[in-house]
Amino acid sequence: MGTLPLDDRGLAYGDGLFETVLLRDAQPLLWREHMARLQRGAERLDVELPAQDTLSELCAKAPPGLAVLKLIVTRGSGGRGYRPPAVPSPRLRWQVMSFAPQPARWHEGVRVRHCQLRLGRQPALAGIKHLNRLENVLARSEWQDDAIAEGLLCDSHGQLVEATCMNLFWLRQGRLETPSLSHCGVAGTLREALLSTLDITEVEVGPEQLLDAEAVWLGNSLQGVWPLTQLDNAAGECLRRWSLDPRHRLLQDAGHALLGYPRQT
Amino acid sequence: MGTLPLDDRGLAYGDGLFETVLLRDAQPLLWREHMARLQRGAERLDVELPAQDTLSELCAKAPPGLAVLKLIVTRGSGGRGYRPPAVPSPRLRWQVMSFAPQPARWHEGVRVRHCQLRLGRQPALAGIKHLNRLENVLARSEWQDDAIAEGLLCDSHGQLVEATCMNLFWLRQGRLETPSLSHCGVAGTLREALLSTLDITEVEVGPEQLLDAEAVWLGNSLQGVWPLTQLDNAAGECLRRWSLDPRHRLLQDAGHALLGYPRQT
Repeated sequence: MGTLPLDDRGLAYGDGLFETVLLRDAQPLLWREHMARLQRGAERLDVELPAQDTLSELCAKAPPGLAVLKLIVTRGSGGRGYRPPAVPSPRLRWQVMSFAPQPARWHEGVRVRHCQLRLGRQPALAGIKHLNRLENVLARSEWQDDAIAEGLLCDSHGQLVEATCMNLFWLRQGRLETPSLSHCGVAGTLREALLSTLDITEVEVGPEQLLDAEAVWLGNSLQGVWPLTQLDNAAGECLRRWSLDPRHRLLQDAGHALLGYPRQT
Repeated sequence: MGTLPLDDRGLAYGDGLFETVLLRDAQPLLWREHMARLQRGAERLDVELPAQDTLSELCAKAPPGLAVLKLIVTRGSGGRGYRPPAVPSPRLRWQVMSFAPQPARWHEGVRVRHCQLRLGRQPALAGIKHLNRLENVLARSEWQDDAIAEGLLCDSHGQLVEATCMNLFWLRQGRLETPSLSHCGVAGTLREALLSTLDITEVEVGPEQLLDAEAVWLGNSLQGVWPLTQLDNAAGECLRRWSLDPRHRLLQDAGHALLGYPRQT
């Protein structure tokens, strides 16, 4: 576990980026997508990234089996207040942690609720995985019940965006859809890979679209894909239940193939 | 200069708060306002603050003359991802730096520009001084010309909010006004103190209001109050100039009285 000096801008302002990468036997999954997102974030924030080789070599430090590489790149120290330093010295910090997914959620599905918090729209930061994540923290603080696996987030215009740490997908009238992330939200690497694999349309719609969906899923590059069996409102009242059938395995199996996780059909 | 462990949530998510307090001969200015804002932030984020005495005692560590105490309170380590730990252990970190204001800006006024970036509206975080400050960093990155002292920020609805690190005030048709901060922005401690001292109205208006203002000011608890002599648009074109007259000293003198800075009349 490393440390960071108190004047690092990553701490002072959240002035940096991070990635959490699934490793299997020290081999990264969706590495291309992780590096592409990190690069997009670095361009957006104008932060210089470490060399690709430096980042790739971190994966080799993982133990056998499943692990997570968390890497953080900050703008480093310096500058005058919010003003970035003229000659920045970005800092790379990383840690490798063991990881175990939750197979019961793959197989049995999950119960999910709507969050009260609405995400603010900020296109300048939308999609990238930066260190300003207080909205996610506040949203995840809305419930303590472990029976509820995730919380769905709408933006200030009432449009669906994502869950607190997962992306959202659904099948409706035979079409696969996922929320557009042009205003806010994090473009997950599993989402990116699924968009390249399946015919998924990015849409701007409200939460009512989920009520008559044939299937709804949450997914990210660590946990894989969870089908929803129940959706509650923010007051804890059930809005809709789903019985899992082969349609609920469609996007899940595609996601798990990308991560080396087992098919559920 | 202290350090922070890599898994601190202040770094990971910007999950914390900060204050920068002006000290004169180890005595804090606007201490009550700083502590009140920190308390509001702590309630909003549900973070436990160190005891008041612990915080007050930090001021005694300052050298003679002017200095700045920067204190950071984070939620500490732990939790599962964005989910806060059930039993959090907040961390306090602080540093004292020497400080010198810029008297020429008090006396001669400043040139200011509009920023292109629009602040996202997030009422859950509005007003408090949390560690998610990427919007401010991006806005401050928009210009390098040292002749431009600050940048004005509107929100996504086009309404005036603040400058990158200062609050905004103006005199228009004989009335003192400042933007409402109910949607976004930081409620500065000097602004709080001025609202208690002068008859200032909080309003929701667009930037066109500044064009026929009799006087416009920027202020914070470190720099004091700067009157505007020129306002540029984001393309660098001059929108309006002001010649300083006694009206420009009204709010400035009131602010400086609160900070122990010299009157400019």
